[in-house]
Amino acid sequence: MSRHDVLCIGNAIVDIIARCDDDFLQDNAITKGAMNLIDAERAELLYGRMGPAIETSGGSAGNTAAGVASFGGQVAYFGKVAADPLGRIFTHDIRAQGVAFDTMPLDREPPTARSMIFVTPDGERSMNTHLGACVELGPEDVEADKAAGAKVTYFEGYLWDPPLAKEAIRLSAKLSHEAGNEVAMTLSDPFCVDRYRDEFLELIRSKTVDIVFANESELKSLYQTASLESGLEAIRADCGLAAVTRSEKGSIIVRGDETIVIKAIEIDTLTDTTGAGDLYAAGFLYGYTNGHELESCGKLGSLAAGLVIQQIGPRPQHDLLQAAQQAGLA
Amino acid sequence: MSRHDVLCIGNAIVDIIARCDDDFLQDNAITKGAMNLIDAERAELLYGRMGPAIETSGGSAGNTAAGVASFGGQVAYFGKVAADPLGRIFTHDIRAQGVAFDTMPLDREPPTARSMIFVTPDGERSMNTHLGACVELGPEDVEADKAAGAKVTYFEGYLWDPPLAKEAIRLSAKLSHEAGNEVAMTLSDPFCVDRYRDEFLELIRSKTVDIVFANESELKSLYQTASLESGLEAIRADCGLAAVTRSEKGSIIVRGDETIVIKAIEIDTLTDTTGAGDLYAAGFLYGYTNGHELESCGKLGSLAAGLVIQQIGPRPQHDLLQAAQQAGLA
Repeated sequence: MSRHDVLCIGNAIVDIIARCDDDFLQDNAITKGAMNLIDAERAELLYGRMGPAIETSGGSAGNTAAGVASFGGQVAYFGKVAADPLGRIFTHDIRAQGVAFDTMPLDREPPTARSMIFVTPDGERSMNTHLGACVELGPEDVEADKAAGAKVTYFEGYLWDPPLAKEAIRLSAKLSHEAGNEVAMTLSDPFCVDRYRDEFLELIRSKTVDIVFANESELKSLYQTASLESGLEAIRADCGLAAVTRSEKGSIIVRGDETIVIKAIEIDTLTDTTGAGDLYAAGFLYGYTNGHELESCGKLGSLAAGLVIQQIGPRPQHDLLQAAQQAGLA
Repeated sequence: MSRHDVLCIGNAIVDIIARCDDDFLQDNAITKGAMNLIDAERAELLYGRMGPAIETSGGSAGNTAAGVASFGGQVAYFGKVAADPLGRIFTHDIRAQGVAFDTMPLDREPPTARSMIFVTPDGERSMNTHLGACVELGPEDVEADKAAGAKVTYFEGYLWDPPLAKEAIRLSAKLSHEAGNEVAMTLSDPFCVDRYRDEFLELIRSKTVDIVFANESELKSLYQTASLESGLEAIRADCGLAAVTRSEKGSIIVRGDETIVIKAIEIDTLTDTTGAGDLYAAGFLYGYTNGHELESCGKLGSLAAGLVIQQIGPRPQHDLLQAAQQAGLA
């Protein structure tokens, strides 16, 4: 049996990142800070209006996988690219980071998914994702040995957007639990929560999911509350372990009666928030699967998130293990 | 007639940039700091050994074109991509920067050129370029109105590597001079100078080229001298105007009896030297074609070069006109 610390499952996406001003978002009806799903036609339109860009591998759970690997954790990834140049870039980057990635690429249309990410002067990112080949991820892509063997199987709420991925998740979760392992999810995006609230609540309340990652607005969306406190108490009741991120306010971890408050790290310049939540999850899961206390898990999450928002793009450009060692966390 | 400030002609390349340590360069026989030409097979090999990367449009003269446009100059570009995804990225990025780029893409193999750029901890970049579709750039790609109409036509010495591009350059230079305009070149790389020294000297001495950009090692290579002073006196005799860049020592401009010494700007962190010379040329040429004195041209070059080495990748991520205004240069 494969034995990884973490198996990440997500939409395999190449990011195309450019700066813009707030007017651009408004003029193009892009919801700021959100993941906007777009079709091929709108992708063409927006790309035509986009400024000069850079390309980098992305995808929420892919970023988390890369982060765990950068900490030195053992990671596998399931996600669907096409057998095309962007798919090749995605595959290269995640493997070069040390992640076991063997999902069969799609040998026909649609092409590898891409997300046009517009970063405004405040550092906030607004994503416009064309799912492409991701719509073909399904239960046949679940490598049983990896699904059973990972200490934590972590997936994106975003996987409820493509049609078949949820079946892959349910199968992976079953294999994980049968082997005595745990399953984690991120709520991904407040609008995503809004699309799939009942299903996400069912995943949590049925104990299909053991650990939930959410930011404050996702948590509030899940429980349709304006109160962080209410949201925290609700997730505490529904779920064994949850980590709620709050940008510059740090994060709050709840487990049973425990509540652990973690500070954000000090940063010099907020450059681009892309990947902040993904890298928080990476630090947390690296710690969690390597015997750290919850407080240390949260601090590792804060560290990785704080570093990634000081660069352009969501994949770690620092050696996170070295950064953790310098911070006295590893 | 098209009327641009600058027409740039170069190898149209997408950069694939990753960090590595010095041992990696040695183990893979990559000449540090140089542009190493590689074939498709070696490109595969090196990509397989390369760490996680980011992709950005590049190409020396393409970077210069993007820089001039970012200053607000009117720019056109000739360069050959293929009709493939990387070619599309290149085309999007240069047009989105405001550069007039209409060279017909190649509708067959080879694919768009790529350069794997390894950045060592000292910030130095070592390039490994597979020329791909660039080998098809030829005189049929010279758009006569643009070649005749630009105040300065600027090209890369690198264009002597593909077989037919030099014919495009000679034709463009002829059209430019017939219209009473000027022609500039960069010597590109000391090894490139070594490959084409006699031809480069002939271009300069025959007055096919009016303005030369070189860094110190390229100048020394051109005149096969170890002395900067000898090199400067030789280029002063051969060429009407030359700008010689010296990294953190700034640059020296020579024109007839004049010698103008320009300081480098103060920087916080040297991140990646990719594009430093290209952006120096951009600032210089923007100033030169917009009525600035030579000292101001040199300062604009220093500014643009100093900014680009504090980021990853060679295309300007700052608005250079704004930066020039803040520096009191525009």
